[in-house]
Amino acid sequence: MRLETRVDRKGGKEVIISGEKPTVIIGEGINPTGKKFATALINGDMKSIREEAIGQVYAGADMLDLNVSMVGVDEVSLLPEVVKVVMDAVDLPLSIDSSNLQALKAALEIYEGKPIINSVTGEERSLESVLPLVKEYGTAVIGLTMDEGGISNDPEKRASIARKIVERADLLDIPAEDVIIDCLTLTIGTDVRGGLITIESIRRVKEELGVNLTLGVSNISFGMPDGNLINNSFLPIAISSGVTCPIVNVAKARPTVLATDLLMGRDRVATRYIEDYRRRSNNNKK
Amino acid sequence: MRLETRVDRKGGKEVIISGEKPTVIIGEGINPTGKKFATALINGDMKSIREEAIGQVYAGADMLDLNVSMVGVDEVSLLPEVVKVVMDAVDLPLSIDSSNLQALKAALEIYEGKPIINSVTGEERSLESVLPLVKEYGTAVIGLTMDEGGISNDPEKRASIARKIVERADLLDIPAEDVIIDCLTLTIGTDVRGGLITIESIRRVKEELGVNLTLGVSNISFGMPDGNLINNSFLPIAISSGVTCPIVNVAKARPTVLATDLLMGRDRVATRYIEDYRRRSNNNKK
Repeated sequence: MRLETRVDRKGGKEVIISGEKPTVIIGEGINPTGKKFATALINGDMKSIREEAIGQVYAGADMLDLNVSMVGVDEVSLLPEVVKVVMDAVDLPLSIDSSNLQALKAALEIYEGKPIINSVTGEERSLESVLPLVKEYGTAVIGLTMDEGGISNDPEKRASIARKIVERADLLDIPAEDVIIDCLTLTIGTDVRGGLITIESIRRVKEELGVNLTLGVSNISFGMPDGNLINNSFLPIAISSGVTCPIVNVAKARPTVLATDLLMGRDRVATRYIEDYRRRSNNNKK
Repeated sequence: MRLETRVDRKGGKEVIISGEKPTVIIGEGINPTGKKFATALINGDMKSIREEAIGQVYAGADMLDLNVSMVGVDEVSLLPEVVKVVMDAVDLPLSIDSSNLQALKAALEIYEGKPIINSVTGEERSLESVLPLVKEYGTAVIGLTMDEGGISNDPEKRASIARKIVERADLLDIPAEDVIIDCLTLTIGTDVRGGLITIESIRRVKEELGVNLTLGVSNISFGMPDGNLINNSFLPIAISSGVTCPIVNVAKARPTVLATDLLMGRDRVATRYIEDYRRRSNNNKK
């Protein structure tokens, strides 16, 4: 069983997330953990944010994740403002990333089309507040496999939270194809079992629920040297295990995603791979 | 069930191949498909062969695969000569790669320790001639999942040939831990299903037989642009699916293998990864 998640931008692109189709690349760049973006936010520098969004499209993003949550920022007014700026700049569907309910609502009010809400968790408080928004605005949603007990080291526990989120969505008539599970990954720098636990969780969720899966891949290498090598070794394992729409640094990760799609039979006659190779070769010549 | 394959060089290194331990890297460089080595063979240039072997050890090989089979070469005299030269130069266990039975015998006569014979197939002629050599010389052996019908596109067929090889070895009291299965991969350039079929075969063999697995990884990208990207995306999938001793271009593949071992929990406290990172950083500074 493989479910298809469809999201879109009115007048812009529709994106179909499915294990049968090429992996959907969600760009992670518009996030205050990056110094450049944090500075832009503090200064209200919308030009930088616009340029970052355009840069990620150029690098080959299929969707963009937007997160403006940082200390000293009024997310309720800033999140919709940034959504507006990015919608004006690029025509990709967005993943709106906030744990502030009022900010989410304000952003959903102005979003044109069907976005992803990032995220709901297995916590009662989160399920009860976020899922009604998913229903009301007809969005898709990312479900994180954590709850009141935090992030478990037991893949079965993570899978059971995924099941709970899908079931609770179903009670509100939110179809399973609109729930995208994020099995989460902690850095391997603090626990070398981190990768294995995440991969085992992904395989279980894929097999039991058939839903689409995302993963914030860069977390795995936080604080480690040559993080790009770790991320680009993790991506092929994650995709071949069931991740269909990873959140990544697009420029650094896209060649590996395209090679993995080719290897997984998701790039008939290798067109996407070859086109991307030509584009990279031409860029290198410049 | 996970089996351990032990091979060694008398007075040199012992190598243990097991899914619980770091991936064993078998260097592919001493092979006449490489122009440099082919020229050295034709000219009887043993100095180049010696240097190639030392270079691969320096690049981090755990074992070396030796193949001297090419048109115009007397393999029966050349194979033992090259084995001797390489044994004098480096102290790693060898994988002796030949389909010429007399050449194999001559090489096994002079090999000191327990090598791998590469390879036996599921063909009757091969099983009947190679397995007695494995028994007589107490070697390990690589079993290719192909038979009189060639290389099947059906993973179940490939797995059934693996089963047959293990069963036929057992009849001669060759233990399953001395059989290493190679599920084979053809280039994705001629059939985009190539990667998927191989991975599915690997997963079945691992689950059903628990034996160690090798794979000539570079074959997947033959004739494709940026083959290194394809190989290094395939390696993490292959290793996470069950390959424990891939045959690779050591210098190009080793960082990815070490990152994958780290991700798969096969590098406790990340020592190997960090050491290799430091070594690469120092080399880059030179």
